[in-house]
Amino acid sequence: MRRLAAGISALALAVGAVGASAQDRPVDGFLAATKRVAPNREPIIDHPKDRAAAAAALNSAKARFGHAPNIVMILMDDVGWGDMGAFGGGVAVGSPTPNLDRLAATGLRLTSAYSQPSCTPTRASILTGRLPVRTGLLKPYLPGENNEAAGLNGETTLAQLLKQAGYTTQAVGKWHLGGAPSSQPQNVGFDQYYGILTSSDDYTAWREQWRNPDLVNDPDRRAWAADGEIMGIVSGTPGITATLAFPIDLDSVRYVDEKLTDHATKFIASRKNEKNPFFLYFATRGAHFDNYPHPQFAGKSPGRYPYKDTIVELDHRVGQVVEALKQSDQLENTIIMIASDNGPMAETFPDMGTTPFRSAKGSIYEGGVRTPMIVSWPGMIAPGRVSDGLFDLMDVFATSLSLAGRADLIPTDRYIDSIDQTGFLLAPEGQTARRVEYYWATNVFMGARVGEFKYLVRDQSTESDDSWPRSSPFSASFTSPIYGGKMFDLYIDPKEEHALAPLKQPQIPVLKNAINAHLATFKNYPPKVPLR
Amino acid sequence: MRRLAAGISALALAVGAVGASAQDRPVDGFLAATKRVAPNREPIIDHPKDRAAAAAALNSAKARFGHAPNIVMILMDDVGWGDMGAFGGGVAVGSPTPNLDRLAATGLRLTSAYSQPSCTPTRASILTGRLPVRTGLLKPYLPGENNEAAGLNGETTLAQLLKQAGYTTQAVGKWHLGGAPSSQPQNVGFDQYYGILTSSDDYTAWREQWRNPDLVNDPDRRAWAADGEIMGIVSGTPGITATLAFPIDLDSVRYVDEKLTDHATKFIASRKNEKNPFFLYFATRGAHFDNYPHPQFAGKSPGRYPYKDTIVELDHRVGQVVEALKQSDQLENTIIMIASDNGPMAETFPDMGTTPFRSAKGSIYEGGVRTPMIVSWPGMIAPGRVSDGLFDLMDVFATSLSLAGRADLIPTDRYIDSIDQTGFLLAPEGQTARRVEYYWATNVFMGARVGEFKYLVRDQSTESDDSWPRSSPFSASFTSPIYGGKMFDLYIDPKEEHALAPLKQPQIPVLKNAINAHLATFKNYPPKVPLR
Repeated sequence: MRRLAAGISALALAVGAVGASAQDRPVDGFLAATKRVAPNREPIIDHPKDRAAAAAALNSAKARFGHAPNIVMILMDDVGWGDMGAFGGGVAVGSPTPNLDRLAATGLRLTSAYSQPSCTPTRASILTGRLPVRTGLLKPYLPGENNEAAGLNGETTLAQLLKQAGYTTQAVGKWHLGGAPSSQPQNVGFDQYYGILTSSDDYTAWREQWRNPDLVNDPDRRAWAADGEIMGIVSGTPGITATLAFPIDLDSVRYVDEKLTDHATKFIASRKNEKNPFFLYFATRGAHFDNYPHPQFAGKSPGRYPYKDTIVELDHRVGQVVEALKQSDQLENTIIMIASDNGPMAETFPDMGTTPFRSAKGSIYEGGVRTPMIVSWPGMIAPGRVSDGLFDLMDVFATSLSLAGRADLIPTDRYIDSIDQTGFLLAPEGQTARRVEYYWATNVFMGARVGEFKYLVRDQSTESDDSWPRSSPFSASFTSPIYGGKMFDLYIDPKEEHALAPLKQPQIPVLKNAINAHLATFKNYPPKVPLR
Repeated sequence: MRRLAAGISALALAVGAVGASAQDRPVDGFLAATKRVAPNREPIIDHPKDRAAAAAALNSAKARFGHAPNIVMILMDDVGWGDMGAFGGGVAVGSPTPNLDRLAATGLRLTSAYSQPSCTPTRASILTGRLPVRTGLLKPYLPGENNEAAGLNGETTLAQLLKQAGYTTQAVGKWHLGGAPSSQPQNVGFDQYYGILTSSDDYTAWREQWRNPDLVNDPDRRAWAADGEIMGIVSGTPGITATLAFPIDLDSVRYVDEKLTDHATKFIASRKNEKNPFFLYFATRGAHFDNYPHPQFAGKSPGRYPYKDTIVELDHRVGQVVEALKQSDQLENTIIMIASDNGPMAETFPDMGTTPFRSAKGSIYEGGVRTPMIVSWPGMIAPGRVSDGLFDLMDVFATSLSLAGRADLIPTDRYIDSIDQTGFLLAPEGQTARRVEYYWATNVFMGARVGEFKYLVRDQSTESDDSWPRSSPFSASFTSPIYGGKMFDLYIDPKEEHALAPLKQPQIPVLKNAINAHLATFKNYPPKVPLR
């Protein structure tokens, strides 16, 4: 607690140090513009009309289909904001994405959706509705760290709550939220799990002779990799440790996303005419390095790199999921949310993804955390909607429970950063209920965005070049305080090239108040790891 | 001629200096992959099936409507590739563009369309089908340069040829191709002209007191600005000097795009049930600096800057043109082409446009020349098509004559860089007929693109920072030769941050042969200004 308190003081100091002008007086526009629905909940911008419209639409859908909607969350890996055609990429960057573009054109495209800077933190935030600093899941868990403490460690998951709400819950694909049995998906709320427990490269990199034959063939590495969770796709149901279902080697790895999709689509087909809804959490293998696309796609994309081929394959896999929903007459009672877990990985250049923004995976600049997001629900979301309203992938948590009609299940004994965005997603011209996006690098608070204004109290760089990290700054070791802060206008300067704090003084108190309100939550609700 | 020959030798040397390996032998894949339809024409990639499909579609349209299609070219000013929603911008950068996005969604979006690096060169290339170095229109003509030599100076324009093909021809908006009477639109092929002869800022900047009251009120400046062509919108018909129709001052400038649109839509309405087709060349005032949006739009965009408001206004103006075509039952017999004349202007930061690419207006990096382009023709172009095939705005010249059924009118006495892209635009999955995009900075040859590979033989920078020019390099004074050239893969590295020549050796001879074939054309067809 002492370290925590010290951390908060240090931050308050950094924030308070910004311009000692009249504007610093606590006008507290943040609290005036928002509403705190409960002491442990992130304040919302209240749009009563949007909420009412969404509730009415949900009621009539429930009357029509007999139960709450199915929820499909598709989470892609290391895919950049600029990789899909609907976001200015697609054929323009050598990876056509017709299925994703069609979903975007017939649904809602979110241009300011946010993930955390890396894999595990994002996945944890979706499934717990809480910031990584609160849950302790600060960084991707690495092989050898599959102990109890490295996992979800007592957090309540969305799957558990949806199950309580009567959902059948299925996890498919990459987990990366703890390999210990107690943290495996089937033991934290999913009725069944079929997927890979750790990061994609764990299954391939140690086998790749070109990396260094001596090391690759070293007995210690072989022993490490003999761990079941590293051997391939595992499968499990509650109460057991997941067991190997599909061994992965440098040949079979090419079929992993096909196998995962096959499992997901069979699950969907099996749900036809069921009396209760389902939650499908489908986290793809692609396009995490190193990419070994399916033979049907390898070398076939216009870009020809394995990453590009994999984007085209992922687009096809998404198409297969949609088709399975259509074939089983469930498309109209299913909300589909698609996003990526963080920005593209820069170290793998030239075989990497695209972002029009600054920096890449691991960074709190937009290139690290702005995620392409599509939400589709035919008949419920008007075709062709596009919004720049803030949406954090964490919001999937509270939104899903609201869609399920069981917002009452949201925990009250801990701080929930997730916001119910049902009104935003479903009302005809729904607006975001999120006023602020917060930027965290592990347990270091970096800054906040309100509207188009992004205000950083700390800077982040890498050892090479801070606009183009060759090394992803997963840890916060490359951050440093900024005296006076740095303000970017993300509409005028989406690449964050020109800090404009002096021109934007009037916005600074708004951001500072939002930041202070956010940091205050850590006093009443101590996080699992101290702030730094 | 001596200077010309010396220029070519210097270039050949620069190109030839790239890697003296076996790959340098003249395999001449360029000529093998392309077909030269006439000695004075840019070689094409021949797609006989696309050409046949386009011809059949054009024939049946002609049978249905009684004449060749109307052609509407809308050219916006200084609008960036990333400003429209359809290209990843729109609401994401504070300027929603629903009308443009709808046109893109119901037509063809071109992701690799190219302009010249600045205004006058692009406009000249569209209307003459020739590179600026061939016509001598190398740079924006500035006030005081409205002599005969500064204008089109004997070039044959698309308007003249379409008129010969039976079209009624109308020019509306910014001209900037010479203010002398002999170069004014109504005297170079247009039946009527209504617009501003020079650049938008000429009408406002000298009046803006904040710039420097002493200079603003100086009698010499007042005298200069008393020139009729600077005073406002002028209007004219063939044989006369255009006369003032709408004075522009700091108040009325806000209505210029409304007035232009009004003129364009009235022209369209007047064409209902006419027996012959029309060509409307509509070059908007917006979004050239300094932007004074219409009161209906000022301060109304989410981005709130005048530039952002102007983008929203332009989107509305395009919507009005489309509506006028619809109301007069001409939409189905009209091809609409929309593009920008160059990248966004960097000096006006923060009130400027968006590009995801490197650099800005004036540059031969993609930020200067990659233009957002939409082609729409309901019933003739399949909805939702997107292509990364190369298209140079010059191609509008030959394509339009082909659409008019009079490709035979294309001049044979001079080199024509324009390529007939009818098959690309109209065939169901038409492919580009352009194999190479050439990059020129005024009369300095810089490099070429084939597929996703861009090869520069010269570099371009500004006095400040070569990835973010504070000063647009209109002239080529900031170029320098690159020993060995620089190769970018625009799919992997759309921002041109990593020159990859050593990894891309196999592509270099392809580019070198293309460049050599291009430079050879200047021997047989001497340009109006010597190469540098």
